[in-house]
Amino acid sequence: MVSKSQTKLITSLQQKKYRDQTGLFVGEGPKVIAELLKEGFKLQSLFTTDASQTAAENHFYVTDAELKRISFLKTANTSLGVFEIPKPKLLQDSGLMVALDAVRDPGNLGTIIRLCDWFGVQQILCSEDTADCFNPKVVQATMGSMARVQIHYLSLSVFFKKTKLPIYGGFMDGKSVYSEKLTKDGIIVMGNEANGISEALIQKITHKITIPRFGKTQKTESLNVATATAILLSEFRRSTET
Amino acid sequence: MVSKSQTKLITSLQQKKYRDQTGLFVGEGPKVIAELLKEGFKLQSLFTTDASQTAAENHFYVTDAELKRISFLKTANTSLGVFEIPKPKLLQDSGLMVALDAVRDPGNLGTIIRLCDWFGVQQILCSEDTADCFNPKVVQATMGSMARVQIHYLSLSVFFKKTKLPIYGGFMDGKSVYSEKLTKDGIIVMGNEANGISEALIQKITHKITIPRFGKTQKTESLNVATATAILLSEFRRSTET
Repeated sequence: MVSKSQTKLITSLQQKKYRDQTGLFVGEGPKVIAELLKEGFKLQSLFTTDASQTAAENHFYVTDAELKRISFLKTANTSLGVFEIPKPKLLQDSGLMVALDAVRDPGNLGTIIRLCDWFGVQQILCSEDTADCFNPKVVQATMGSMARVQIHYLSLSVFFKKTKLPIYGGFMDGKSVYSEKLTKDGIIVMGNEANGISEALIQKITHKITIPRFGKTQKTESLNVATATAILLSEFRRSTET
Repeated sequence: MVSKSQTKLITSLQQKKYRDQTGLFVGEGPKVIAELLKEGFKLQSLFTTDASQTAAENHFYVTDAELKRISFLKTANTSLGVFEIPKPKLLQDSGLMVALDAVRDPGNLGTIIRLCDWFGVQQILCSEDTADCFNPKVVQATMGSMARVQIHYLSLSVFFKKTKLPIYGGFMDGKSVYSEKLTKDGIIVMGNEANGISEALIQKITHKITIPRFGKTQKTESLNVATATAILLSEFRRSTET
């Protein structure tokens, strides 16, 4: 049974404004919920169609029709969890990081979080106008990876002034990432889907790099931000860790 | 003005069945249409809101409202082109190729086509149950790259029996792609989003490779098929062409 006020709360969590107000977000499906729990996320309430799982006080049995009504997915799963947004951990000025400058598409953010988890990148820096990592689309797309990577929202230009790390950014006229000497620790800046890295940040980039293009016709405009991140992370790890 | 029969035809082209029957597909927006024309695709008819572009016999002026009605996009552009599906070119048993085994998501197929264009891969092999490259979502996602890469639908297992090329496939227990000797020419097999490479093809793989995982927790299940393709293509080109 889902009460009216619970339905209203859950539905509101599709919007960032209400996630910020309540400090809550939604994760759906046993797999995503299990991953979030394993990584220490606090469950505020669980709605499940499995009657055997409703012993705990904050667990509620729902029918398929009720779950469908509160679910954000096209095809509702068997459970929906409301979780607390954790307090941000302290940002460490070390290691390999990815910085996202106004990456707007939740699908791209989700893919990049998964990539960071795969390549052992523990901190992602996001400009304040980057997609929200507690957006339901991101939570589902990352399949739990989100729980293993720390995501910090901050002013990139302020942080770039303070950091001691080298700052890499992709540019058409940069040096080939295959020949440039890459460092073990550093920041890889990925720009907005349409406009690339913003003017204000370009001057802070200490190493301009590029992914060489092999197509004969040289017409492809650019790689998608998520596939470019995949290639750069692979190159950093290959050349400094293997 | 769009006639009733034109509207019916265009709307039907969202479905593969009618694209196959008519030999036609749809590309939208001046950029995609220009790229397709440049690469020699034959325009059957053009519908545009720009009255200055309607001199030709098969060009039709439409209002915004009319375009919206025939468009497949959430936000209609300023033009919609109906193109002829070209006759497949002869498949060459040479070069670097990507073979897709039941890649179902049109977004993934679109991203992989763009990647192949970037890395100069001229032939993509698709199993017959892979997403259709003339699906409107694929056409729009590739932004014209589709016009520069040949895409062949065929039985992969039949082709793999005949080919003289080495066949690479990604497996959890494969050799690291960073240390395996890669060849300039070859076939890289990418599997289905959920099930990977099918049983029938596994025995045809001559080189089992893997993208090493650097995350400490070793919990990320797998990379998305498009990001894995990005990393593999980058490695093949880096190690054999630079």
